[in-house]
Amino acid sequence: MARLSWEEFQALTPEQKAPFFQREGRPYHALVAQQFDRPFLDRLCELATRTRRIAKTRGGRLFLQDLLSDKRAMLYFAQPSTRTFLSFYAACQIVGLQPAEVRDTSTSSELKGESPEDSVRTFSSYFDLIIMRHPVGGFAERIAWLLSNTERSVPVINAGSGKDQHPTQALLDIYTLQRSFEPRGGIEGKRIVFVGDLARGRTVRSLSWLLLQYPGVRQVFVAPPSLQIGEDVLAYLRRAGVEYHLTDDFESEIPAADAIYMTRIQDEWDVNRESAALDTRRFKFTAAHLPKLKPDAILMHPLPRRDEIAPECDADPRAMYWRQVRNGMWVRVALILIIFDRDVEVDRYYEDLTR
Amino acid sequence: MARLSWEEFQALTPEQKAPFFQREGRPYHALVAQQFDRPFLDRLCELATRTRRIAKTRGGRLFLQDLLSDKRAMLYFAQPSTRTFLSFYAACQIVGLQPAEVRDTSTSSELKGESPEDSVRTFSSYFDLIIMRHPVGGFAERIAWLLSNTERSVPVINAGSGKDQHPTQALLDIYTLQRSFEPRGGIEGKRIVFVGDLARGRTVRSLSWLLLQYPGVRQVFVAPPSLQIGEDVLAYLRRAGVEYHLTDDFESEIPAADAIYMTRIQDEWDVNRESAALDTRRFKFTAAHLPKLKPDAILMHPLPRRDEIAPECDADPRAMYWRQVRNGMWVRVALILIIFDRDVEVDRYYEDLTR
Amino acid sequence: MARLSWEEFQALTPEQKAPFFQREGRPYHALVAQQFDRPFLDRLCELATRTRRIAKTRGGRLFLQDLLSDKRAMLYFAQPSTRTFLSFYAACQIVGLQPAEVRDTSTSSELKGESPEDSVRTFSSYFDLIIMRHPVGGFAERIAWLLSNTERSVPVINAGSGKDQHPTQALLDIYTLQRSFEPRGGIEGKRIVFVGDLARGRTVRSLSWLLLQYPGVRQVFVAPPSLQIGEDVLAYLRRAGVEYHLTDDFESEIPAADAIYMTRIQDEWDVNRESAALDTRRFKFTAAHLPKLKPDAILMHPLPRRDEIAPECDADPRAMYWRQVRNGMWVRVALILIIFDRDVEVDRYYEDLTR
Repeated sequence: MARLSWEEFQALTPEQKAPFFQREGRPYHALVAQQFDRPFLDRLCELATRTRRIAKTRGGRLFLQDLLSDKRAMLYFAQPSTRTFLSFYAACQIVGLQPAEVRDTSTSSELKGESPEDSVRTFSSYFDLIIMRHPVGGFAERIAWLLSNTERSVPVINAGSGKDQHPTQALLDIYTLQRSFEPRGGIEGKRIVFVGDLARGRTVRSLSWLLLQYPGVRQVFVAPPSLQIGEDVLAYLRRAGVEYHLTDDFESEIPAADAIYMTRIQDEWDVNRESAALDTRRFKFTAAHLPKLKPDAILMHPLPRRDEIAPECDADPRAMYWRQVRNGMWVRVALILIIFDRDVEVDRYYEDLTR
Repeated sequence: MARLSWEEFQALTPEQKAPFFQREGRPYHALVAQQFDRPFLDRLCELATRTRRIAKTRGGRLFLQDLLSDKRAMLYFAQPSTRTFLSFYAACQIVGLQPAEVRDTSTSSELKGESPEDSVRTFSSYFDLIIMRHPVGGFAERIAWLLSNTERSVPVINAGSGKDQHPTQALLDIYTLQRSFEPRGGIEGKRIVFVGDLARGRTVRSLSWLLLQYPGVRQVFVAPPSLQIGEDVLAYLRRAGVEYHLTDDFESEIPAADAIYMTRIQDEWDVNRESAALDTRRFKFTAAHLPKLKPDAILMHPLPRRDEIAPECDADPRAMYWRQVRNGMWVRVALILIIFDRDVEVDRYYEDLTR
Repeated sequence: MARLSWEEFQALTPEQKAPFFQREGRPYHALVAQQFDRPFLDRLCELATRTRRIAKTRGGRLFLQDLLSDKRAMLYFAQPSTRTFLSFYAACQIVGLQPAEVRDTSTSSELKGESPEDSVRTFSSYFDLIIMRHPVGGFAERIAWLLSNTERSVPVINAGSGKDQHPTQALLDIYTLQRSFEPRGGIEGKRIVFVGDLARGRTVRSLSWLLLQYPGVRQVFVAPPSLQIGEDVLAYLRRAGVEYHLTDDFESEIPAADAIYMTRIQDEWDVNRESAALDTRRFKFTAAHLPKLKPDAILMHPLPRRDEIAPECDADPRAMYWRQVRNGMWVRVALILIIFDRDVEVDRYYEDLTR
């Protein structure tokens, strides 16, 4: 990473950047969904399941807390997100990593004319890991690149930057699919139906990409035409030979779906309140849809929701969105353990447990 | 709790709700002062005194920290209160419970149209205990009810909600009275004089209720007529056969008092600045009152104070308000230990200590 | 401290106050740079170096974390400073001291009319150490004095108050000089060149004072006339017989300097935007200056910087400002250990390590 100038680095595609996010063949930074290959995804899911199993006993919880108890993490959240913040915070606590938070970055030094790069470099001096959420796309990458040129580089996890990347959300979605479909032969060959604001939701874009690594998955994109998935996504689906189709007829897609992934209309990105003019009623999941859903299908949502899914569905065993929340915490635990190379100790403890 | 609809649950009196806040005969949620019976109060006071005694040595402090070191608490403070926040935060640290805070709840998901219930349910996914302060009366109860209908219920402690309930403040007041009067036969038969804004202070209302459980306590309410204690409180005092009287003559009440409980004019609840018109000078405790106070009486205040008690009184040994602050921390420690069923271990350690 | 009234105490010079900041001959409060004598500075530097050496292994880090794991610190930051906050926060975590933060002090009780003294006394009830930053000069001293008159005094560390004092910044500068000049016979006899806004930067004033304790140090003050160092500083330099001179010709001072200490124009203290009229171009360090700097000289900056030092200088081994940041954390670790009298255990561990 340090060998390239920032301009050279930025010119790379996400796939080309991926090797720069590794150290000695292991993940070091976690910045874009495109950096995760299938062996990594399988390992992450396995590790998440093992740690949550270990955490069922007090002894197991104390074992986990000991793993990184000599390390400190900075949660640098320039963009508010209580949900993602708490998920990472709890994940740090589970592995004993001592967290410190920076939320309001406008107050202090930036007022005194310091560059954002100087600020983050200073703050990073005190910590062993940076977990960063930032409104500017690519900022986390910029910091990772910058630190790689200093004497004291630390790993950076992207907890959401700009409109484009939120890689740990994509990881928790994969983990939710993997756990749900494990008794049915895995994610391979399943039919995944994405619904809602597919143009602006970074979640769907990242998940769609990661699903390329599971052969036979069919992707269906259900949205009003103005909010359909981007042509760039479709282009790489075609390149990968993936079966997909686009529609605005949600009702017809429910019976065949293995997973329905609902999303919210992201009107915070509206330029001119264009979302208000849309008829979004046909892109909601109501209690009346439950009987049409296959008995072993699942219903997902990255949350927060408005009215895309009626609260009456919450108690249905196929409703996965509250479990996605917990899965997110465990996936983040697993990711942190992999970054710090402490995952093998989890395996050892787990093997003793299951022997 | 889960067996009732929210409407049915809300229709219950606090006393009727109390059993729903238990699990297997033990306190689970701590939501309203009315749920605490005399055996609970006695046990809580005993436990608070034992933990503070244990905490006098480094070994004892490390023992306490170990008790809940595998658990995490969320301090959800939608209403600012540094004092109560820090007291709970320190209480968590004392028993090793790892705290995480949510203060500004307006920023994140609620802006995106998420319901408060969804927000709290999401956040609760990461934690083993919710400590909640909220401007809306009954919100903590609402969350406890809501979570009891999910797969993952966690205990909820009410750290102040709306105008009506702040149960741990009432508990610390009871503990302060119990400790102070222990050498004089306990709280039973004492004369407690409440002074100030009795109409709007939730503290006095809750404490008055808990004092019903101590036979022979006489309650005196000293306030300007427009700020006198509510008729609902007097109704249950009568029902319980408790001796009480109302007056606006503070001076005359000082000599016979065993405890004087001063309160602040809560003009933040004024509708039309009506407090400004009141002559509150006669409802202040000054250094000139000290000689009139019985040698073994105590002077209390829930804090923050304005000028209800002159700072010159602070050094008097009968001034209890700074000790109330510390007592509050220890009572919260005891409450948390009871909720997590770890109090028996404190007894064991304490018995070894005093053997 | 308790024996004097606040008025009597305030009338003392910093040097006269120093003994009041001790307990049993050891530092207790850390409030003003003037309280630190040479044996203390030497000990602090030694201890900082030993702890960072110990922290190189996981075993060492766990040893350090155990030292104060039964104590809690409040970081009371009424004035925003993410940099100083995180440095202290990390220092607390390193020695296991559990931190809690109070940042926005305007929200809560002060709105209800509570005095700042009552607020801080309440908050201090829950903690064993106060680390305080406040916009009002002398506020940290005021709190230390106030608590010394109560039953429960706790040590207070000044993390920056008003325009005048930021003692731990001065300590980290001394430590940076000491480490840098250790192979060259120590700080004694070196030529230290201060550059920039010397009138308003509290850093330079404190450091200048501490340097009096190192014989033979020559101090050079480079600034536009309106921002030159105060006459009060020059008066005590003369009194101490220290060689110094004032100039506005930066270029000429570079070749002979052993340390160049750059500072930022602190226009946040401008009364009438007077800084905007200054030509500050001649008070910047650029890449073109690097060849003129002695090979073993060092370049310092308290940060945040604007353009006083060009980023192109960052990679030069003589650029010390990023190391100053890390040094600050270790100096704070050492200070906390001294205050709590746990430094001897560090010595013992260190001796075992180096045996």
